[in-house]
Amino acid sequence: MKKDNKNFSDQILPLRDEIDAIDSKILSLLARRQAQVEKVLALKKAHNIPVYHPAREEDLISRLRLQSKTAGLDPDFMEDLYRVILRQSRVKQTQKMEHKSVKPDSRVLVIGGAGQMGSLFASLFAKSGYEVNILTEHNWDQARKLCQNIDLALVSVPIERTAQVIEKIAPFLPPTALLADLTSVKTGPVAQMLLSHPGPVLGIHPLFGPTLSCLDKQIVVVCPGRDETACQWLTDQLGLWGAVVVESTPQEHDQIMEIVQALRHFATFCFGDFLCQRQAKLARTLEFSSPIYRLELGMVGRLFAQDSALYAEIIFATQERRDLLKEFILSLILHLKMLETNDKQLFIDQFTHVARWFGPFSDQAMRESTFLIDKLIERF
Amino acid sequence: MKKDNKNFSDQILPLRDEIDAIDSKILSLLARRQAQVEKVLALKKAHNIPVYHPAREEDLISRLRLQSKTAGLDPDFMEDLYRVILRQSRVKQTQKMEHKSVKPDSRVLVIGGAGQMGSLFASLFAKSGYEVNILTEHNWDQARKLCQNIDLALVSVPIERTAQVIEKIAPFLPPTALLADLTSVKTGPVAQMLLSHPGPVLGIHPLFGPTLSCLDKQIVVVCPGRDETACQWLTDQLGLWGAVVVESTPQEHDQIMEIVQALRHFATFCFGDFLCQRQAKLARTLEFSSPIYRLELGMVGRLFAQDSALYAEIIFATQERRDLLKEFILSLILHLKMLETNDKQLFIDQFTHVARWFGPFSDQAMRESTFLIDKLIERF
Repeated sequence: MKKDNKNFSDQILPLRDEIDAIDSKILSLLARRQAQVEKVLALKKAHNIPVYHPAREEDLISRLRLQSKTAGLDPDFMEDLYRVILRQSRVKQTQKMEHKSVKPDSRVLVIGGAGQMGSLFASLFAKSGYEVNILTEHNWDQARKLCQNIDLALVSVPIERTAQVIEKIAPFLPPTALLADLTSVKTGPVAQMLLSHPGPVLGIHPLFGPTLSCLDKQIVVVCPGRDETACQWLTDQLGLWGAVVVESTPQEHDQIMEIVQALRHFATFCFGDFLCQRQAKLARTLEFSSPIYRLELGMVGRLFAQDSALYAEIIFATQERRDLLKEFILSLILHLKMLETNDKQLFIDQFTHVARWFGPFSDQAMRESTFLIDKLIERF
Repeated sequence: MKKDNKNFSDQILPLRDEIDAIDSKILSLLARRQAQVEKVLALKKAHNIPVYHPAREEDLISRLRLQSKTAGLDPDFMEDLYRVILRQSRVKQTQKMEHKSVKPDSRVLVIGGAGQMGSLFASLFAKSGYEVNILTEHNWDQARKLCQNIDLALVSVPIERTAQVIEKIAPFLPPTALLADLTSVKTGPVAQMLLSHPGPVLGIHPLFGPTLSCLDKQIVVVCPGRDETACQWLTDQLGLWGAVVVESTPQEHDQIMEIVQALRHFATFCFGDFLCQRQAKLARTLEFSSPIYRLELGMVGRLFAQDSALYAEIIFATQERRDLLKEFILSLILHLKMLETNDKQLFIDQFTHVARWFGPFSDQAMRESTFLIDKLIERF
């Protein structure tokens, strides 16, 4: 046995050395690739061309898939690998693009700029060369002065104070200044902005948390209020930072957010709360968990790692939301009987009905989540 | 403007050609790397050495992270990339290892081997050189003959028929044969196997669906029933196929599965059912979705892409499960008042209580899910 192990080591070491040498070469090539990508970026910047070029990426992936087959490599593996590489160069490019400005030297006032989301936007504007000032409760006495000659007033305060802050700040604004807000509900704030300010109005809802370092592919909903032409530069600036801008009406936005934010977070809260009541053994449970459950439980844990006040604000934002959540609970009560009578057939019928309604989205979801589960297995 | 575009093309094309040339070189190196890895595999196989060598992988990652810094590359990016590469070689190696057998030429009878999970295991055993037979309702008249001289009888039938099938098959088994089952509940089946068969008994629950092509890092729970020594080869075989084997008692297993399977799937069903009742606009909702919601909605869609009867079986499996799900619904009813009275503070208090209970798991979940969200952004 000992001799066999010695023999094995003698044979495997040169193979491992060869693999290490190959890895070093790959690393050097990646560094050279990065240098070339930076040259492309410099060119794009000079010519004001957007960073993300989906067609070029897809071409590159298709060609590599073909080449992989010839070289005896798995094309899916090659695609996975290049998605990582392309994302890295996109992030690098976007980070540099952040310094680009659509309306250089314009003056931006962030109201609530000491909060997390306000700070994020203040820093984005500052990096892009805007002149940024911040107004908080503590320097409110300077509000009138800070509003002089500004091009944009961006309101980033908690939902329940948004209307009131808009009312207070509007009289100080130059009539041509753009008034925008970052609140996660839009009907009330946009109506209040239109009422209080005669100039351009834009409602904005960034669909991400304030801890991001890069807006790459993050979604921002904009609800045009008044004078879209005068608001265009702000929408363009969001795009230049890497965000995907989706346009909506305040009403549609709020209806969709009732589900995307309030219902989803509330359902997750209820699930975590029940696990806690039952004192479920989390650590042992994870040992027993397939990647999909690990992921699902991770989504629950993730919620509770975040700010309770923020979620309270989202969930309790409006009467409509609270009514929707009540309806949700009532819809669960209807399932009690099925459980009491052990009526599997009723479950199957309802399941089938919902599955039909989900339609092609289910298959897409299956593909996407299977991809993620593979990533989870890879990493953890 | 046209002249400018022409100028841009002239300058960018040689850069892109250079990038394409680098990519071709990387691809050739990856193909060479794969060839070396296959030599390592052949050696390991000859010396009966396990495929997965965590220490070697971690060494390699650490070294590459160091080299990345020197070469001006982001070490996290390099690690991401090599996790993909290492996983690929592990999968390739594991696929080949599937043909290895712990107890070559042993005889396996899969009862219910025409079902999906039964077929998967029948095929795994066959690939590893076992002599595999399949017993179904249709050839039950040959049961006695097929049981002669077998080393393993593996029961893979729906939960509600497991006990009955065990009772029927046991009298035909050689007393020294190992009797095992693949049911997703364990208390009843293991007790029934111990009662009906005097020889070695092992309860098994594979925590994955039957559509897998590779068991790499998948979890399998085993519940020893009788004569662990005589069962060891089967546990070892699961490990050789790449699975992570977790040992438990039937009671602990069932308690944990009430939560991991029944509660989670039921909660997801309720959520999807409510979306359907409300006729939520899925497509538009996705346009408004940050990656995290896309992922969460994907988890719901994923459920409904699968077999309703399978989920009915899991959810309604036992009285204990149905009671747990009723308790879950009742716990939600308690939240109605908080919504009716708009009591944000109560929500914050409960949230904080649960967050404290989740403890360090929340941060881990945050890290893991953030990693996945990045992957999702990369890909879709």
